[in-house]
Amino acid sequence: MRRIRLTIAYDGTNYCGWQIQPNAITIEEVLNKALCRLTKEEIAVIGASRTDSGVHAQANIAVFDTASTIPADRFAVALNQKLPDDIVITKSEEVAADWHPRHQEHIIKTYEYRIVNSPVLDPTKRLYSYQVTYQLDVDQMREAASFIVGKHDFASFCNVRTNAKTTVRTVTELTLTQQGEELIVKITGDGFLYNMVRIIVGTLLRVGRGFYTPKEVREIVEAKNRMAAGVTVPPQGLKLIEIQYKTER
Amino acid sequence: MRRIRLTIAYDGTNYCGWQIQPNAITIEEVLNKALCRLTKEEIAVIGASRTDSGVHAQANIAVFDTASTIPADRFAVALNQKLPDDIVITKSEEVAADWHPRHQEHIIKTYEYRIVNSPVLDPTKRLYSYQVTYQLDVDQMREAASFIVGKHDFASFCNVRTNAKTTVRTVTELTLTQQGEELIVKITGDGFLYNMVRIIVGTLLRVGRGFYTPKEVREIVEAKNRMAAGVTVPPQGLKLIEIQYKTER
Repeated sequence: MRRIRLTIAYDGTNYCGWQIQPNAITIEEVLNKALCRLTKEEIAVIGASRTDSGVHAQANIAVFDTASTIPADRFAVALNQKLPDDIVITKSEEVAADWHPRHQEHIIKTYEYRIVNSPVLDPTKRLYSYQVTYQLDVDQMREAASFIVGKHDFASFCNVRTNAKTTVRTVTELTLTQQGEELIVKITGDGFLYNMVRIIVGTLLRVGRGFYTPKEVREIVEAKNRMAAGVTVPPQGLKLIEIQYKTER
Repeated sequence: MRRIRLTIAYDGTNYCGWQIQPNAITIEEVLNKALCRLTKEEIAVIGASRTDSGVHAQANIAVFDTASTIPADRFAVALNQKLPDDIVITKSEEVAADWHPRHQEHIIKTYEYRIVNSPVLDPTKRLYSYQVTYQLDVDQMREAASFIVGKHDFASFCNVRTNAKTTVRTVTELTLTQQGEELIVKITGDGFLYNMVRIIVGTLLRVGRGFYTPKEVREIVEAKNRMAAGVTVPPQGLKLIEIQYKTER
């Protein structure tokens, strides 16, 4: 048996997220079925990141074990012929038989959240961004972002239905970049709590609109209480960009 | 009766283009039905531009006549409540009773064609761009574009199924702008033949790949023969950006 690692890009619009569930189609299920058709084996992938319904990915990671003789790097091409257009394997490679995409010493993930800040709606962007028609003060949002960066207890930025053992995480980078009418929030850290990125963005948007001062965001972090922070923004603006493993950096 | 002009943005993915046809859903049909439900009148809009299946628009124009007492600028809000998410009225206003969106002295249209030039597919862009995995020489494409600008007989860049009286058109501007891995071809002119923008982009891509030299594009224009030019690129990269009327500039 070999362990193969896949890098997977997907448009999450038509899926109820990554993780298999009854009565709803998910990326994991579609991937397993394509692998079974290709190899004639019963295959269940192990994914690195369980993205939510409607969330996109440029490079999620998954592994599976196979007795197939297909060369490791050919799985990408072979799978893409069996997958729908909205799921693309961008890389396939062999890894050590015990390599697990979630149980690694140090994992760094990067997400992007795309905001379209324009008074005029653009329906071609509705599935890949969150449209905000009011004016945003991006400088204030950047100042607020500085209070998010670092090692903190992010309990204020975590959906209460979490089952995480600890809510302490480290955000190593949080940048806001304007590209025309788009504002891209890019966040990197050693792990993210349930809805954490979407609650951080919801809180920064409240700063951008003038409801919170940047310094109030520091108080929101210190409150360690979900009620203190802003709303959870919709999933379609969110994209998992990259997962880095310590051994490979 | 008043004549109301609508500015319409849409995601063309789920429609067989603008124009009403049997056995297929179109933007025009959905708009007419929404207007009928709103006004309780039998309304048929007159559109400015009959975009093809899968083509998008940021600002197509249409007019209709109504006896309704709804204020002209409120039609946008009222219609958006009855339209699906992928069609948005961005403006509504009263115009002269004889104002026709296609029969005007001078009409300037601007289209954008979006190319994603990257070896790695991004499925979130598949419905709004044409992905090209080979390397493009954009400088060569720009040089070729200079031979397209101006008043020419564009017969080489017109689908043979056209019923245009003349194939002479004026392209006033043709620019190629790089935004990260995206290459945006923006073209402005006094009218475009059937598939003209998509054939121009297909021809520029051949230059970018090294199949044609820029100067061969001048010969292609002079040939006045559809067989001389490149392929028609897919519709999903194309977006109607703006329609300008002389009287309003």
